[in-house]
Amino acid sequence: MIICMRQGATKGNAEHVIQAVKDAGLEPAPLFGTERTVIAVLGDERDLDMKKFRAMDGVEKVMPVLRPYRLVSRESHPEDTVVDFGDGVKIGGNNPIAIMAGPCSVETEELLLEIAQEMKKRGVQFLRGGAFKPRTAPYAFQGHGEEALKWMKRAAEKTGLKVVTEIMDTQHVDMMADYIDMYQVGARNMQNFELLKALGRKQKPVLLKRGMSADLDEFLLAAEYIAKEGNSHIVLCERGIRTFCKYSRNTLDLNVIPWVKKMSHLPIIVDPSHGTGSYDMVKPMAMAGVAAGADGLIIEVHPKPEEAWSDGDQSITYKTLDDVLDGINKIAVVMGR
Amino acid sequence: MIICMRQGATKGNAEHVIQAVKDAGLEPAPLFGTERTVIAVLGDERDLDMKKFRAMDGVEKVMPVLRPYRLVSRESHPEDTVVDFGDGVKIGGNNPIAIMAGPCSVETEELLLEIAQEMKKRGVQFLRGGAFKPRTAPYAFQGHGEEALKWMKRAAEKTGLKVVTEIMDTQHVDMMADYIDMYQVGARNMQNFELLKALGRKQKPVLLKRGMSADLDEFLLAAEYIAKEGNSHIVLCERGIRTFCKYSRNTLDLNVIPWVKKMSHLPIIVDPSHGTGSYDMVKPMAMAGVAAGADGLIIEVHPKPEEAWSDGDQSITYKTLDDVLDGINKIAVVMGR
Amino acid sequence: MIICMRQGATKGNAEHVIQAVKDAGLEPAPLFGTERTVIAVLGDERDLDMKKFRAMDGVEKVMPVLRPYRLVSRESHPEDTVVDFGDGVKIGGNNPIAIMAGPCSVETEELLLEIAQEMKKRGVQFLRGGAFKPRTAPYAFQGHGEEALKWMKRAAEKTGLKVVTEIMDTQHVDMMADYIDMYQVGARNMQNFELLKALGRKQKPVLLKRGMSADLDEFLLAAEYIAKEGNSHIVLCERGIRTFCKYSRNTLDLNVIPWVKKMSHLPIIVDPSHGTGSYDMVKPMAMAGVAAGADGLIIEVHPKPEEAWSDGDQSITYKTLDDVLDGINKIAVVMGR
Amino acid sequence: MIICMRQGATKGNAEHVIQAVKDAGLEPAPLFGTERTVIAVLGDERDLDMKKFRAMDGVEKVMPVLRPYRLVSRESHPEDTVVDFGDGVKIGGNNPIAIMAGPCSVETEELLLEIAQEMKKRGVQFLRGGAFKPRTAPYAFQGHGEEALKWMKRAAEKTGLKVVTEIMDTQHVDMMADYIDMYQVGARNMQNFELLKALGRKQKPVLLKRGMSADLDEFLLAAEYIAKEGNSHIVLCERGIRTFCKYSRNTLDLNVIPWVKKMSHLPIIVDPSHGTGSYDMVKPMAMAGVAAGADGLIIEVHPKPEEAWSDGDQSITYKTLDDVLDGINKIAVVMGR
Repeated sequence: MIICMRQGATKGNAEHVIQAVKDAGLEPAPLFGTERTVIAVLGDERDLDMKKFRAMDGVEKVMPVLRPYRLVSRESHPEDTVVDFGDGVKIGGNNPIAIMAGPCSVETEELLLEIAQEMKKRGVQFLRGGAFKPRTAPYAFQGHGEEALKWMKRAAEKTGLKVVTEIMDTQHVDMMADYIDMYQVGARNMQNFELLKALGRKQKPVLLKRGMSADLDEFLLAAEYIAKEGNSHIVLCERGIRTFCKYSRNTLDLNVIPWVKKMSHLPIIVDPSHGTGSYDMVKPMAMAGVAAGADGLIIEVHPKPEEAWSDGDQSITYKTLDDVLDGINKIAVVMGR
Repeated sequence: MIICMRQGATKGNAEHVIQAVKDAGLEPAPLFGTERTVIAVLGDERDLDMKKFRAMDGVEKVMPVLRPYRLVSRESHPEDTVVDFGDGVKIGGNNPIAIMAGPCSVETEELLLEIAQEMKKRGVQFLRGGAFKPRTAPYAFQGHGEEALKWMKRAAEKTGLKVVTEIMDTQHVDMMADYIDMYQVGARNMQNFELLKALGRKQKPVLLKRGMSADLDEFLLAAEYIAKEGNSHIVLCERGIRTFCKYSRNTLDLNVIPWVKKMSHLPIIVDPSHGTGSYDMVKPMAMAGVAAGADGLIIEVHPKPEEAWSDGDQSITYKTLDDVLDGINKIAVVMGR
Repeated sequence: MIICMRQGATKGNAEHVIQAVKDAGLEPAPLFGTERTVIAVLGDERDLDMKKFRAMDGVEKVMPVLRPYRLVSRESHPEDTVVDFGDGVKIGGNNPIAIMAGPCSVETEELLLEIAQEMKKRGVQFLRGGAFKPRTAPYAFQGHGEEALKWMKRAAEKTGLKVVTEIMDTQHVDMMADYIDMYQVGARNMQNFELLKALGRKQKPVLLKRGMSADLDEFLLAAEYIAKEGNSHIVLCERGIRTFCKYSRNTLDLNVIPWVKKMSHLPIIVDPSHGTGSYDMVKPMAMAGVAAGADGLIIEVHPKPEEAWSDGDQSITYKTLDDVLDGINKIAVVMGR
Repeated sequence: MIICMRQGATKGNAEHVIQAVKDAGLEPAPLFGTERTVIAVLGDERDLDMKKFRAMDGVEKVMPVLRPYRLVSRESHPEDTVVDFGDGVKIGGNNPIAIMAGPCSVETEELLLEIAQEMKKRGVQFLRGGAFKPRTAPYAFQGHGEEALKWMKRAAEKTGLKVVTEIMDTQHVDMMADYIDMYQVGARNMQNFELLKALGRKQKPVLLKRGMSADLDEFLLAAEYIAKEGNSHIVLCERGIRTFCKYSRNTLDLNVIPWVKKMSHLPIIVDPSHGTGSYDMVKPMAMAGVAAGADGLIIEVHPKPEEAWSDGDQSITYKTLDDVLDGINKIAVVMGR
């Protein structure tokens, strides 16, 4: 932590800050410059509330030196984390690009099974589909709930696919565990800390989607909440951030892929469906995502997007999926995946 | 809803869309222009998923005509909603500017009571304070939980203040009801739809903070989730949005105040503490908020901000509060409040 | 400047940086912590390119300590700057709230004169109006150019108003000087550095509008470009920034008002017309701007907004202006202006 | 254009709007719905100021149907534009990925020539380098100006490279024409409309960088300014936008690549150096850019980034360039380029 005093700050101001640093168990190293005084602080600042120093008289700003996360940081764990789902399905490291695909919402058991079988044929490893749907408007279809989970489980048993689906409430943690292979935390719940803690107390993998306005530190700190409770089976997911751009539903931020790789050991996948909001943008952005270093993709697929109960505009057909997978596979070869 | 076809769309494309509109129970009004075809749709579009139309061949874009909310809209309810807390405490309409004040975190019962008494002396109506704290990092103080709620209730009984505090999980809804006068939904949970629904099934007032990247429609739709379940005792709160600006912690968006007044009947207050993140910005932005038409303010106060367990940099002292209240009161007179 | 080394950086890395700091004429103060090495640098960092240090092996980040501007900083000049236009018209300090008003585009000489007379009657001090118009599309009306400047000058002579109008090219600097009292630099040209330098070599006041995505430092550095060339007659203007919000044309950022007052001695005014993009939002945001501490306002007025050649949706009528001025004046009294 | 009336709008309001549409030479098609009246407008709306309709009584919103650009739209010109620089150097269509590389600032003639020769050896086609530098602070190195252009021209003659460099002022258009092969318009000048018009009157290619907060329509309209004056030799460049993200200098928005390809016939390249602001992010984002469909790349290269006069943190060495080019080439093969 670096504490910069204002230009007009008095010697007494600085001494007061220095004493407070000592009281917090850290070691102050004051530097009395010509323009202003700077107090460098040695020791681990992550356990204290740095904001209190900025409340002190004469302090202009307080700058952290350490990244605020620990368990998920690359520094603490230099090797890539590989999340293992059994049956040879693994995400991260040098494992093949993982593909998760399926409908936005689970609509009927028949349709889900059909989609699952079509996905299996194409080498997809994970069946995605919404049972509990976070919809912006309360009048939109909210999902079939536990019933849909049963359908997903049966489709998984018949096809050998793994199941990933969104969890929206702490009260569903135990119930859902019986049906699925991976919990998905949606963008809107990335900082639902009670939910993160509850998932941290399980040993089931978590797919943590980046919040729409989450910066890198916040994204990794959300993962840290899960890791701190004991669950390190975490896969991150970039799904588009909110910017001034109106031309696309969200702004898929591929820059975060190499940055996550640099700062953390966790795998990260890309959601080009939500990230672009447009079915004709899925292929180029899926390919770009893999070229940027992503470990996998999650894609919305529907046999008839115009009849989908949700997100029809960003869902692709089986035929388009063939084309997308072809593009992905070619880039994967370049990436050695 | 207005459906714009692409320039090269065929007649068959348009006919397919027109049929789909009819199948959805709405009335299509196609306009065959020189540049392209536009299909206007008569009827209430809010019950269907408009995205499916954009998935159809030949469709370029789909534009909604109606605002997606109903119960909270000014159109459906032209008069201002006034939320009544009993004992003459009311928010909204022409009632006086409501002031909520107190510490960021509830730290000890003694300190809380002291603060409550100081607030009461100054005419504050609501005691704010965090029992469950949504902290970006899991290593930060997470709040005293239910114990703090007990302290808040006792402080309220002794001073006659109303209590407002944040709820972070559906499992706390019933437990908290006994201790508090108003649930606060924090910015990070604005789209925690399960929580909104659960609060909608209570009749206790809800202070709904705007999410960090929530546009106006999303903000009002979050309120609609509560209202749809039967609870119309909702107060909105602008607390700063996330923009490119680094000079302040958040960007307090006062523009939303007159826009909420125009589009909705719900009252709205301003949080200049989180909105600015800086103790010396609370006064000007509180005054500006009232001048923009806000119905109240929620302010972080601490006798010694540099010793606060959280948010010390944006908390103000009792003395500064006197100055802030003086400024607010003068603007309130201009506003006829 | 504070240079943070990576965790794994070698002693040689740090020595290399330390030598480079010395070579740049500054004094390094290295701190060897348990987690990593931090090199504080004493001396004025503003004359060197700090980015080169981040290019060195083992460096994680480089943090500036000093604000990058000098002449426009409050530290260098503690008293408020007052810009004097003669005839008792002054902006800044404790002078009355300055009002600039007029049409978006200058349309005809007759209409301009009518508007000028109406403005004069209402106590407005500055006539605004576009002669050179920065339009997003090349097919939109681009302004009458020098002809419009002549009309403005004649209207000013007849009414005693001061003239402020936008300059878009360095080649117009001398030509425009004869007609106007204040150059306006529009948001799109805030970082047109050649234009800023050319205006810095004049002694005529400059109204510098904030760029749509300019942070506080960039805004003040744009003013510094003008000041560095010798012209300190600068008035800043907040006119809305670009955020994710779609509900309003721009997001008027009133937070910047008290921040400019804190960091700089320059006056700042508010443009609620562009800032909101909506005629019915001008009054509340103008009032809020004055309550936040603004020194003036610039407002688009047109007798028949629906016939305006540009920006009709955000222009107000004479009658609405009366109402807006009434609101502004009441807040001005509270502010002691 | 679609004009939506408010719910409470009167019949007279609608009639007034309908008459105004007719007066503007367009054809109104009113639809009287149960909830509100919608007036669709047939004909080309791009020549009129749509905002005036929103100023009319009873109007809630006005939505454009047509994209505002013409000459640069894919609809008007379905084939890809290829910009030809002679000597077999072409950008766009199915031509090979174009590489522009060189220092941020031109520092000395000797160094520039060395870099040019190193670039030539590696198959780079364009030498980039700043002679006029747009620097945020007036105290930073502003470039060697015309002298540097002479050095660039001589280096180009010796190596056979094409020269691309930034223009910052209309007064430099003719002077620069003698030295260079392509004008670069920087992000800060994307809406310097006088400069765009001046370049439109030349026949020399223009590299138009996207403004930091420019949405897709604004980007293409800036190109339309150039095209409208008669110069269609335009190459677009994505160089990062401004978002809330602090983890990288800018947010490289690769989504815009396929969107430009869809909406326009102009080629587009990517600047991963400014787009990321970090030398270790250049490779993954360059590869991702090509995978997203970009026609070329512009990269900052310096033999000793830590001694660069500007942008050292985002410049790469010759050795790193070899690695970056290797990655780009592999992706280019996949893309058939």
